[in-house]
Amino acid sequence: MTDLPLLSNARSERVRSVAALGRRAARDKQGRFLVEGPQAVRELLGYAVHAAEALYVTDPAASRHTEIVSTALGAGVPVHGCTEQVLAAMADTDHPQGMVAVARRVDVPLQEALDAVGERGYAVVLTHVRDPGNAGTVLRGADAFGASAVLVSAASVDVFNPKVVRSTAGSVFHLPVAVGTPVPELLHACRDRGIRLLAADGSGATALPDADLGGPHAWVMGNEAWGLEPEVLELCDDVVAIPIRRAESLNLAMAATVCLHESARGR
Amino acid sequence: MTDLPLLSNARSERVRSVAALGRRAARDKQGRFLVEGPQAVRELLGYAVHAAEALYVTDPAASRHTEIVSTALGAGVPVHGCTEQVLAAMADTDHPQGMVAVARRVDVPLQEALDAVGERGYAVVLTHVRDPGNAGTVLRGADAFGASAVLVSAASVDVFNPKVVRSTAGSVFHLPVAVGTPVPELLHACRDRGIRLLAADGSGATALPDADLGGPHAWVMGNEAWGLEPEVLELCDDVVAIPIRRAESLNLAMAATVCLHESARGR
Repeated sequence: MTDLPLLSNARSERVRSVAALGRRAARDKQGRFLVEGPQAVRELLGYAVHAAEALYVTDPAASRHTEIVSTALGAGVPVHGCTEQVLAAMADTDHPQGMVAVARRVDVPLQEALDAVGERGYAVVLTHVRDPGNAGTVLRGADAFGASAVLVSAASVDVFNPKVVRSTAGSVFHLPVAVGTPVPELLHACRDRGIRLLAADGSGATALPDADLGGPHAWVMGNEAWGLEPEVLELCDDVVAIPIRRAESLNLAMAATVCLHESARGR
Repeated sequence: MTDLPLLSNARSERVRSVAALGRRAARDKQGRFLVEGPQAVRELLGYAVHAAEALYVTDPAASRHTEIVSTALGAGVPVHGCTEQVLAAMADTDHPQGMVAVARRVDVPLQEALDAVGERGYAVVLTHVRDPGNAGTVLRGADAFGASAVLVSAASVDVFNPKVVRSTAGSVFHLPVAVGTPVPELLHACRDRGIRLLAADGSGATALPDADLGGPHAWVMGNEAWGLEPEVLELCDDVVAIPIRRAESLNLAMAATVCLHESARGR
């Protein structure tokens, strides 16, 4: 790694500009986000290399992950060696495992995400999801169970928040994610495409095994604390409950995972 | 609340003894654990009131949750008013929402947990699960999807760790949990009872929809990073994989949730 320029000033303009991506305002302004740790960086380079702008790596991490460094260099992504102090200053997590990349946002326009759902696909809609870990886990479940897209409302957590990116374990790069549309517009856009809207809500009269999952559909997930608002429920075609033994025993990410698994089973 | 003795010395012997329950050594020695926040305390009083030893509550929290305070008092559980400082000193979480209880451990002997599985039930076995959030979420899923018991090996995270207790959202009080048996003994004990052992592992030759879930069975879950060891797989009756689109896209808690939902569906 001695052939790479070594960044050692944790207070340099460049380091501060990368570190700023921990904040939503800077992400929105720059149109970039942080990708932390070898696993996430590997997925970035494998699935969205066009979005990769720079890789920052410590010497020990570069030695442990030579394949990541050569993939980046081979794709024309600038690789910068840096000290542990510089890496710690740039990273949001306490344990970036010696590696942080900067990428341009990878979200797609809403219509492109809806195109991906097409005639047979299914998607997830996050309406007011606030917890980064929940949002990331839902993306991961959507990826695992073959969803065509994830649609994230304007009122939800930023999917390019480093905590969300981390908890997707790379899934944010695997399937189309559309962000920033207000909830009612988002639901109307789905309806206009013939995508059946299924609210996942414990109050639902339809039990999950009885839900109509034959055509294109989207699971509509609400806020962690208050669930789905009446106005949102009204815009949905059905309200579906997962049969459980006790109320409050499923969190949002678990509920989404189970619903998506059911969708996958039907295909 | 002015009729309750108010604890105000954050360095008192009593406060330090409660705070010590954040550490495993103190929990093991005292045979007690911390129950933090109104939701968990409500579940403790509702499902395991015999184990409740004391409730510590700030004045604002007592006003917000009068039903919890009166339930505790009605059940003969001593209630102590305390200052915010005292509560913060006792609690493990940064946001105990004004309330912490101390309870005796609620685990049951292994044979009692196996009795609960009986002829028709199903259980989860955690073999080397280390992350508190994962363990808690698995307990929550087991509760939601009607598992009869959760069996936690000696090599796994302590289920009375405050982080585990929090992430169970009360489920730790809802179903029998047995802890502390080494993995091979635990698996042999299941086999001796005719409980079919199903290893949940991406390498499995049996796909989840084809798994034999007709009789008593237990889902055997491995470590977050390395999964299940060959010796453990050998002791299982079958190795079952959840059909997913991409490897590494399910975490342990999601996998357990999906497997348990499948067990519930068969009943």
